[in-house]
Order: sequence, then structure tokens, then C-alpha cells
Amino acid sequence: MILLQNVFLNDKVCDILIDKNKIAKISDKISIRADEVIDCTDKAILSSFCNTHTHASMMFLRGIGEDKNLHDWLNQEIFPREAKLKPEHIYPLSRYAILEMIKTGTTCFTDMYFHVAGTLKAAQDMGIRGIIPYLGMDFFDDNKTETDIQQAIKYLEEPLKVSKVKKVLSCHSIYTCSQKLIQKFSELAKKYDTYLQIHVSETQKEVDDCVQKFGYRPVELLYQWGVMGPRTLFAHAVHLNDNEIQLVKNTGTTLAHCPTSNLKLGSGQLPLQKYSDAGLKLSMGTDGVASNNSLSMISEMKLAALSAKNQVDSVLAGKVDDIFKIATQNGFEAFGIKAGEIKEGNLADFILVDLNNQFLLPNNNLKSNMIYAADSSCITDVFCDGKALMRNKIIPYEAEIIADFKRVCTDLSA
Amino acid sequence: MILLQNVFLNDKVCDILIDKNKIAKISDKISIRADEVIDCTDKAILSSFCNTHTHASMMFLRGIGEDKNLHDWLNQEIFPREAKLKPEHIYPLSRYAILEMIKTGTTCFTDMYFHVAGTLKAAQDMGIRGIIPYLGMDFFDDNKTETDIQQAIKYLEEPLKVSKVKKVLSCHSIYTCSQKLIQKFSELAKKYDTYLQIHVSETQKEVDDCVQKFGYRPVELLYQWGVMGPRTLFAHAVHLNDNEIQLVKNTGTTLAHCPTSNLKLGSGQLPLQKYSDAGLKLSMGTDGVASNNSLSMISEMKLAALSAKNQVDSVLAGKVDDIFKIATQNGFEAFGIKAGEIKEGNLADFILVDLNNQFLLPNNNLKSNMIYAADSSCITDVFCDGKALMRNKIIPYEAEIIADFKRVCTDLSA
Repeated sequence: MILLQNVFLNDKVCDILIDKNKIAKISDKISIRADEVIDCTDKAILSSFCNTHTHASMMFLRGIGEDKNLHDWLNQEIFPREAKLKPEHIYPLSRYAILEMIKTGTTCFTDMYFHVAGTLKAAQDMGIRGIIPYLGMDFFDDNKTETDIQQAIKYLEEPLKVSKVKKVLSCHSIYTCSQKLIQKFSELAKKYDTYLQIHVSETQKEVDDCVQKFGYRPVELLYQWGVMGPRTLFAHAVHLNDNEIQLVKNTGTTLAHCPTSNLKLGSGQLPLQKYSDAGLKLSMGTDGVASNNSLSMISEMKLAALSAKNQVDSVLAGKVDDIFKIATQNGFEAFGIKAGEIKEGNLADFILVDLNNQFLLPNNNLKSNMIYAADSSCITDVFCDGKALMRNKIIPYEAEIIADFKRVCTDLSA
Repeated sequence: MILLQNVFLNDKVCDILIDKNKIAKISDKISIRADEVIDCTDKAILSSFCNTHTHASMMFLRGIGEDKNLHDWLNQEIFPREAKLKPEHIYPLSRYAILEMIKTGTTCFTDMYFHVAGTLKAAQDMGIRGIIPYLGMDFFDDNKTETDIQQAIKYLEEPLKVSKVKKVLSCHSIYTCSQKLIQKFSELAKKYDTYLQIHVSETQKEVDDCVQKFGYRPVELLYQWGVMGPRTLFAHAVHLNDNEIQLVKNTGTTLAHCPTSNLKLGSGQLPLQKYSDAGLKLSMGTDGVASNNSLSMISEMKLAALSAKNQVDSVLAGKVDDIFKIATQNGFEAFGIKAGEIKEGNLADFILVDLNNQFLLPNNNLKSNMIYAADSSCITDVFCDGKALMRNKIIPYEAEIIADFKRVCTDLSA
């Protein structure tokens, strides 16, 4: 048991007892013999973040090919570098990504990338909630479709030692995956009681191409294919028409809003307030560093709020509490994880922030400060499932992780 | 003399000699007996930032009245609190703002607020380049016009002890200031060889109201009034038509781009690439924390780049080098300060960043990393005019500044 003493929660000071992986009790004063007592004077507790769309192992591509058009960026910069990737690179790359997530207060992330074993192991070793998919991408090649399906089954059937890591499935997109692959992955996700993620309607071009090829827009098509539902997550979903908004709502599909990536790649702006008002389940993702170039949910929240306000020319859009919920609770909920709010019975996923930090003063509105003024320097401690991932700004093995990462970067740039 | 050894500059390692307030020499290896030798292994040197539009003393308003509409926010939240401000509050508030600027790598800022003596003293005491105006705002009251003019003259005539602080003039806006005040301030700025700043075309409403009242748009009007020129700075300037763009260009007037504030208040987006392509002199400002809510030029750069790309749906807009120049060199140049680039003969305004910091790896593109991935934790040292404002993340008197600030906040919220 861990006892947090004198911690600031929702405008008052209290004690919080963590028992195993849960928030067991919240009270003015708790007198109990705990295994560890943490003095939280001048610290506040907040939910940690859930990053519902990223590509962890792309860390080596940060800052590569900046300001090039999409075609040159992909063909001259990204693809040649990714072609050098070997399975053994993934573990150190993913560990480095997870290090950045922890420093910025994230305890759960949904990934999408190749050579998935390394990311799975990195998440388990570092104690973070990894929602790690086998990624299907068959480029409409029947042989690859079969391989992907067999690999996906094999992946899902291998047992996992760590309960807080989840094996899920992912199809890259409707423009890289066959109908057969997408439908089969959707069936497998249901059969194995897990989740499916797919890039959807990221660009207007994707929508236009889909209409031309299939006669329907992407979300309409995926609805017809039977892949939508409360265990399906659409990444991006920038360009939905009113009918598609209703389909997302009616099926309980979750969206992963990635505002930085969408703006950086010139893909457009997800109409946050419109989707919220329609009752859609919105979560938030950073996307990979190649198009962000950060994994910080703090800066993602700020952009999400600003973009929402700007789109409708109103300060009433993208409100503080809504944005914070999208970056925390909604993401956890999408994967059936009972976290995202500091309350009794919830899983103990939380951060502690220093209320004497420059960026958190004055403390007129803590969540506003976290969204608009904070940076990584405000976060002192990060707990996931009742266990410390960072204590007093120290993450075990940080130096080793950085050294390994540098070695991989050198290797890949050779 | 200060010798920076083994510092990373523009993709190579070198030594840099600081003599008094200037960058005296940059060379592969400098052998000289310096007063201080700083080992910069694994550190890079970059220009510090110039924040050309802020309201330092508004720090106590961070997070106040979030997500309220402009009318309620001003009347229920901001104005009642500002009414409690006394001249003696300004010094601790401004010191706190300057602390935040230093932590985020800014060594020069242009202010605009009341009770200016406190800000002037804070800038001098903390060793930062403060461009501090007497602020005129007569609300079309002839008596106030005369008072403002007399106060402005008095302000400009009192000698300053510290050469790196500049006394300038500011008129709030065309909707709060009379033609007489604005023209007189413009004349005084010329007479006293100093600068004039004014909020211009921040909102479409301001433009529409101006056209209705005067028959001209704001920039057209200010041109006719003779207040434009290389020593005039327009803050915001979101809504300019093609004729106004030409007037800004032809007169050499500088613009202060404040993207966060503009989005947060739903004012619109300055068309950065269009203005850049037209050859306008663009600098960058954070505005005050009441509408940002940060003074970090790092996050301001990121939003400026993303907003520029999104507006024209092209990754080719808001390029890394352009954005960095707008946030550094262009701001210094607007006030005749020879800084903003690390080169021999320039003033020694610079930051050192830790190349082993999580957010600056891999170092594929340092300026891209600073814009898109960095936060305050990356900056270890800040120098202004050859003197250290922060060394190894330590700013003298930080604890005292924070304690004083908290006391003022308590006082003002009573």
C-alpha cells in the first residue's frame, strides 16, 4: 500500500491510499500503516494521459525531411530509412518513445507499427499500458492477406505475461488494405475479445479516392463492412460528413484526434466541437514523431483546444474540462480501462505535479494550466497501475535507454 | 571574457569567445586565457528568442475565466481583478513574467501595460532586454489625451541607467485611442528616436467598426495618420487586405504575430505564408498569459508553423528556418538590436541546450527539434548581452521571485 499525504485534488488537500493497483481510498486524513508514505505537500494529483494513436518506433525519424512535400518526404526520406529497420531495432526505439511518454505523463498508449514483438516487450519491461496491435497491410496482395491473417492469429494466441499490456489488431487503412483483410481482422478482434484500430479519413484525398473507387465515403464503407463498434477505433477521422458522424455515434466507435499531425501534414482540422456536440466518443493521440514531432499529450491538448476555438471563432469551444477528459478518461474508456479520473475504485494511473513550478502558478485553474501553460518540467511523478514509472523526475535506466537509442540511430543513419 | 568550449553550432563543434557583451570570435579551437571557461560538450548554442508582444504583469490572471465569452471574461473576470492592481504590484508580477521568459529562452521582450515603472525596474534588475512603453489609452477623452502626452514625455525624458532596456511608446488601439493621441505619440517616438507599438486589426470586428466609423480599414487609416514606418510595430495584424499588406511592406512596419492568442480568443489566423511571401517584416509574440497562457516562445513557434501549414494545406508553408528567424532575428532587428544569430560581432544573446535531452534526440535537425519537440527542460543556460541570466538551470533569486509573486496573487484575490 502507498499513502499519498497532503495531495491537492480538485481544489482541496487530502490523503489518498493506493492498494495494489487501485485507488482504494480518498479522505481528508488517512491513518494507516502503508508500505510507503509519499509527502505530497505542494503537489497535485491528476489522471495520467492516454495517447490513443502513435507509432512509437518512429522516434529515429524525428526532424527528418522537414518541410518537404508528402511525396518527397516519404520517398526520399522516410521509406529509405524505414527500409533499414530490423526487428532488433524496435525494442530500443520503443523504449525511447515510452521514456518520452512517461516524462510527459502518459501511462497508456495505442501503437501501430511493424515488428511488433519489440514494442510489446518494451511496454512490458517499462511497466506502461501498451495497446499493441499486429499491423495488417496487404496492399491488395492475396498472399499477403493470408500471411497477415495467419500472423495476426498467431500473435493473438501467444499468451501475455503482463495484464496491463493488451494485444490488439490494426489495419493500416482502406487505401492499403483489402476488404477481406479488414473484415477478417474485425472478425478476429471480436473472436479474441480485443480491439481494432484503423486510419480513417485522414485526408480529403482519401475520401475522394474512396468515393471514386467504391461509391461510398470511408466511414460508410467500413460501416457496410461491419467493422464499426465500441471496440473499433478510427485514427484521425478529420473528414466526416453528417451521415458518417451518425454512423460513428450509433455504433459507439471511438475516434483518435491527432491535431498536431493533421495540421503539420496539411490534412485539415477535425471539427472537435461539432463531433462533441453530436455525442461522438473522442480520444486523443500524438501520432508518431515523424509528423508531430513530440509524444507530449500536454502540447497536444493545447493545440486541440486552440484549434477547436479557432474553427468556430468562439472561446466556448474546446473547453478545459472537455479537452482534459478527451486526453485522459475517454482514451482509457475506449479500451475498457477503468482509469482517467482520480476516484476510489479506479486504477491507480496518475501523475503528480509540482504546484510551485513556474508554469503552474498562479493556481487559478489547474487543468487550464496543464493544457495551456505546463510542460514536462511540471511533472514529478508518474504511476501506472499502482506502480511508479517515474519518481521525483527519475526514471530507472534512463541513461541506458538513451544510449541504446543513440546507437540505433547511428546504425540506421549509416 | 567567457570561452565556450566544444559547443555545437550549425552542425559542427567549435569554440566561441564572448568579449564583454559581444560574440568576439568563433573558431574550431580558441586558445586564450578567459575569465570563465564553460565546457559545452553535448550542448548546442542557439539565438535566444525575442518576444515582441506581451503584457508581463498579467501573470496573476493566468487561467482566470477560462472558456467564457469575451464580454463575460472581461467584465466578470479580468476588469474587476485589474481594478485592484496597484503600482507596487507591477514589479513582482513583471519579475515573475521575466522568470518565465528566461526559463523558456527569451532575452528580449516588448511589453504593453499600465504602471510602467515596475516593469522597467524588473527588466533592469533581472538583466533582460525590456522594450518598455508608456501606454497611452485616452478613450477619446481630451483631458486624458493631454495627460497621456505629458506622461509620455516625462517618461521618455527620465534617463535610464541600463542601456539594454529601451523606453518606447505604445497606443493601445484605434478603438481606445484618439487620432490626436496616436499621431502625437508617433511624433514623440520620432522626436525621441524610439519606437511605437499598437494593437492593429486583431479581430474582424475591429476592421468592420473602423470602416464604419472612418470609411477606411485600420492600416489604411494609420497610414494616412503618418504613424507607419520602420520604427512602428503592429501587434496581431491578423486581418489585412492586399492594399494594407502593401502599405505595411512599403513603410517597413514590423508585425508581431501572436498565433496562440489569436486562436484562443477566436480572432482568426494571420496568413503567415502570404505575409512572408509579400516580404513583410514578421516577428513573434506570446501576448499576455491571460490569452495564451504561457510566455514560451517555443510553443509559440510550434503553433505558428502548424497554423501556417494548415492555412494553405501545404507542408511547404511555415518552414523551420523561417519560423525560427521570425522568433529570433526578426524581433531583435525590429528594435535595432544586433542579435538573433550566432555570429561574430553580434551581441551575445544566446541559449545553450542539452543535446542529450530526451526531446532533442535524435539531432537530425536542431531547429526543427526546438520548434516541434522541445520544451523548457531542454534549455540549460541563457545569456543576454554577454551576461548569464540562467546558468545550469539556476536563476538567481528564483525562490524569492516566486514567493513575492504568490504574495501578490493572494493580495489581488482577496
